Amino acid sequence: MFSTTIRPLAQFEQSMQLFNRARKVIPGGIYGHTTPALVTPGGSPYYATKGKGCRYWDVDGNEFIDYMCGYGPILLGYQNPEVEEAAEKQRAEGDCFNHPTTIMIDLAEKMVDIVDFADWCVFGKNGSDMTSWSIQVARQHTGRKKILHASSAYHGIDPWCTPGHGGLIEEDRAHIHTFKWNDPQSVRDLIEKHPNQIAGIITTPYHHPTFSDSVLPTQEFLNTIRQICDKHGILWILDDVRAGFRLHLGGSHRYFDFTPDISCYCKAIANGYPLSACVGKEFIKLSATKVFLTGSYWNGAVSMAAALKTIELLERDNAIAHMNDMGVRLFNGLQRTAEKHALQINCSGPPAIPFMTFTNETNLFRSQHFSAECMKLGAFLHPHHNWFVCSAHTDKDIDQTIEIADKAFASTKAKFSS
Amino acid sequence: MFSTTIRPLAQFEQSMQLFNRARKVIPGGIYGHTTPALVTPGGSPYYATKGKGCRYWDVDGNEFIDYMCGYGPILLGYQNPEVEEAAEKQRAEGDCFNHPTTIMIDLAEKMVDIVDFADWCVFGKNGSDMTSWSIQVARQHTGRKKILHASSAYHGIDPWCTPGHGGLIEEDRAHIHTFKWNDPQSVRDLIEKHPNQIAGIITTPYHHPTFSDSVLPTQEFLNTIRQICDKHGILWILDDVRAGFRLHLGGSHRYFDFTPDISCYCKAIANGYPLSACVGKEFIKLSATKVFLTGSYWNGAVSMAAALKTIELLERDNAIAHMNDMGVRLFNGLQRTAEKHALQINCSGPPAIPFMTFTNETNLFRSQHFSAECMKLGAFLHPHHNWFVCSAHTDKDIDQTIEIADKAFASTKAKFSS
Repeated sequence: MFSTTIRPLAQFEQSMQLFNRARKVIPGGIYGHTTPALVTPGGSPYYATKGKGCRYWDVDGNEFIDYMCGYGPILLGYQNPEVEEAAEKQRAEGDCFNHPTTIMIDLAEKMVDIVDFADWCVFGKNGSDMTSWSIQVARQHTGRKKILHASSAYHGIDPWCTPGHGGLIEEDRAHIHTFKWNDPQSVRDLIEKHPNQIAGIITTPYHHPTFSDSVLPTQEFLNTIRQICDKHGILWILDDVRAGFRLHLGGSHRYFDFTPDISCYCKAIANGYPLSACVGKEFIKLSATKVFLTGSYWNGAVSMAAALKTIELLERDNAIAHMNDMGVRLFNGLQRTAEKHALQINCSGPPAIPFMTFTNETNLFRSQHFSAECMKLGAFLHPHHNWFVCSAHTDKDIDQTIEIADKAFASTKAKFSS
Repeated sequence: MFSTTIRPLAQFEQSMQLFNRARKVIPGGIYGHTTPALVTPGGSPYYATKGKGCRYWDVDGNEFIDYMCGYGPILLGYQNPEVEEAAEKQRAEGDCFNHPTTIMIDLAEKMVDIVDFADWCVFGKNGSDMTSWSIQVARQHTGRKKILHASSAYHGIDPWCTPGHGGLIEEDRAHIHTFKWNDPQSVRDLIEKHPNQIAGIITTPYHHPTFSDSVLPTQEFLNTIRQICDKHGILWILDDVRAGFRLHLGGSHRYFDFTPDISCYCKAIANGYPLSACVGKEFIKLSATKVFLTGSYWNGAVSMAAALKTIELLERDNAIAHMNDMGVRLFNGLQRTAEKHALQINCSGPPAIPFMTFTNETNLFRSQHFSAECMKLGAFLHPHHNWFVCSAHTDKDIDQTIEIADKAFASTKAKFSS
């Protein structure tokens, strides 16, 4: 464990050697959202070995204060003892059966209890399982085809929404249309253009596009979507996969004060155990029974036991308030330290899901350099994707991160002048 | 534990009470392929509590010799001590990180090693993750849109293939066409009808439609598909999700002697831990990198550790041969016992994935009655869906099942006369 002094610079030799081995048998070596090759080739850990609290270790023995948290799932810290104990207790009885266990009912009841508008709940394994099922439910419920979402919003990897380009055909998105985040008129325009054809509007609770600042919703934008959905019989689907459980126990819509008709969860719901969930209002329940929904492991009891405990701990320990406090401390420290170096930064997003960019950036080089420097010094940050705070972060962890950021800002200043 | 005598008849009161509770907060109460309400309402366990070897227990305390094995995943028995130990060892280090662990490379190398045509491997969480990604890869690779599959074949729950009807739009299947299993001409007809438009043909290794006998492939059918794919530059995608790891360590294509271009695995790969995989030939690898593939938990190391151990044990213990032997013993026992009662049955499918129907059935009532009787007496069988043997089944378990089947056949004979 490193203390308050900054440890020796990280090396990533083992990561690189393993990556070269991986590339032989895995297309791209590491695929998907955790691909390091696109971010900081050779200057980032590629393979993890273990985690504890808000820290993890890579194959080169480097230790990191973690601000990605598995890209969201790690909410209460790696190896949270109470979550692990609850999961282990269930694992000793079994996980995957021919039937659900009673834990599925307990968890569905819990979700319906904590999410104010929710009357029912279903479960899957991926966020995409739930967002894609939800748009089918909206189509079933309304008898209409079209789905609207904000441009640059991430809703999963299925053809109707993937940010990838390969293997798509035009029919995949024949009825998918995009509006601009926080632009009510762009939503109204689509409603006028496609009268009585829109089944659902899917949004994230706030806008968190990759490569850009996070953008919180304006009240006018939220009000417009709710009014349009009510007026035209359109379902509002909230994709709370990324933000869920970090902003408000009752769902991120409560943090921003709006009410969707359906909401999708994943990532943080079970502190890293694979589970996703979707909740909805009573009036949609019959339609929900009509869209086939299943998967080989979807009754899995261990992940559900972990989720029940995760939600219990969130509530008991006031963990969401703590994550907000840690995010605010991080934002303040970054701002103060950047100013010291006469660097212009923008901290965006809710504090528990913080992000930082350089305001005078015309490309992404400052962000990439800053992140790479932080990684070398022991804080894992992403240059292009929002970060995540977990409840295991302490004042000391944040302060140590600011100490690291101080050096990384100095290096950025030296390299880019401004 | 019950011994060789048949235990008291199962009651399902707790299951029914829990189901009524579940229906309030879960659309349909229990959804998807494990829905008991559609099969034997009130005459089946609805909620499991624990499993051990080839047996599991339900919430009413009933014990069952299991022939569904979680609908496939349980390959080496519930709570296989060595798989659990391997998973626990990894769990103590961590599961979900910002990066893969080296286990992902080890497992990809293992898959490439055991599957003869495979040069690369990727992983997901659901079978559908892999089948749907594969058809995108075929479209990317060929620049064509159309996908062919056998009618009544199950390839997952995504809109292009789901057996459900709700929420679909015509565009979902604008380029999906079906041929008849074991009918080479029906494949040729589609090729002629859509020249240079077919990207991929996806098949299971043998035909296992719900509600019907399983049908093994003819050599002519397999040869025709291979020839057509080679001649027209079409990719043959094998959906080995259901059969994989039960028929041949090297993939079910080796059991039936053919070679696809891509193969999808799930279910049995990690003895119940959530994992799916897709392997393919070298010439497709570049195209594979171009179709975005990711999920919140897809680097999860625990399931991959379980898979590595599962494959190791399959090999070490010659478990596939044992499952075949147990299936043959079951088939022989069922046939012999049915004949004793002058009932006409058809045992179909590979012995390790057995299925049984009544040949003089004009509806499904005999199957439903027989299954319900077996459940009452302590053997869990499905009336409409193929069964699964696991390596924990012993001669004694099979013989006890035949003893149960004897009584269930007697009851079926008494009710239906023939």
